[in-house]
Amino acid sequence: MRPAMADTIFARILAGDIPCHKVYEDEHVLAFLDIGPLSEGHTLVIPKEPAETLGELSDAASAAIGAVLPRICRAVCAATGCRAYNVLQNNGSLAHQLVMHVHFHIIPKASETDGLGIRWGAGKLDADCGRALAARIAAAL
Amino acid sequence: MRPAMADTIFARILAGDIPCHKVYEDEHVLAFLDIGPLSEGHTLVIPKEPAETLGELSDAASAAIGAVLPRICRAVCAATGCRAYNVLQNNGSLAHQLVMHVHFHIIPKASETDGLGIRWGAGKLDADCGRALAARIAAAL
Repeated sequence: MRPAMADTIFARILAGDIPCHKVYEDEHVLAFLDIGPLSEGHTLVIPKEPAETLGELSDAASAAIGAVLPRICRAVCAATGCRAYNVLQNNGSLAHQLVMHVHFHIIPKASETDGLGIRWGAGKLDADCGRALAARIAAAL
Repeated sequence: MRPAMADTIFARILAGDIPCHKVYEDEHVLAFLDIGPLSEGHTLVIPKEPAETLGELSDAASAAIGAVLPRICRAVCAATGCRAYNVLQNNGSLAHQLVMHVHFHIIPKASETDGLGIRWGAGKLDADCGRALAARIAAAL
């Protein structure tokens, strides 16, 4: 564990030093309510394994989160009555990551104005550029 | 499979009827470039299992996506040079889902102006409300 990791609020929640409104826990995963919710039911799902970004998380810990996301999403919807929701996971402060421990947000969206606001400035992928870029990414796997 | 599912562009890509710029494939997962990218390297990761929303996806299919997300994120960063990125998965048209087949976006963020734009109107969770809400979600699990 990097020294900085131990200092995150999520590491302290995992250690039991800070309370949380827990909704789910297993060997690998903890889920609890965000105390700064974008909407009612805004829930955070975090690995117990310490990692700052998703790219630094082990495959096993990430799979464990994947395995429980569907049921936590269903439970958030059942409890709040929401039908639409965003799942968001930010990596790096430029990408709006505030706590440097991997976390997935489940953010119910009940109306246009609540929940996650998204600005979607889509471009258009040139076919030749796309072919070359896909090959570069595949080669880096 | 619902009739509507078979009509999505992603189902047609999975069926081989439409080409894509593929970056990764295994038994359960396909990843390819978004043709309307928010930034260079914008990649989609989808399950082969048909499901409209994450809450409707099987635990196993969602775990399979979780297992490969870290390595695909690393490869996107390695190929593009990006260090910050967002992983976003939208459920329901109100939550900006456009294709009704589960998909995770990996969206590199190289500057304040490219990539995913986020509006974060955080509230404050009342402790009593939080306790009751967490209990309702946990009971729905």
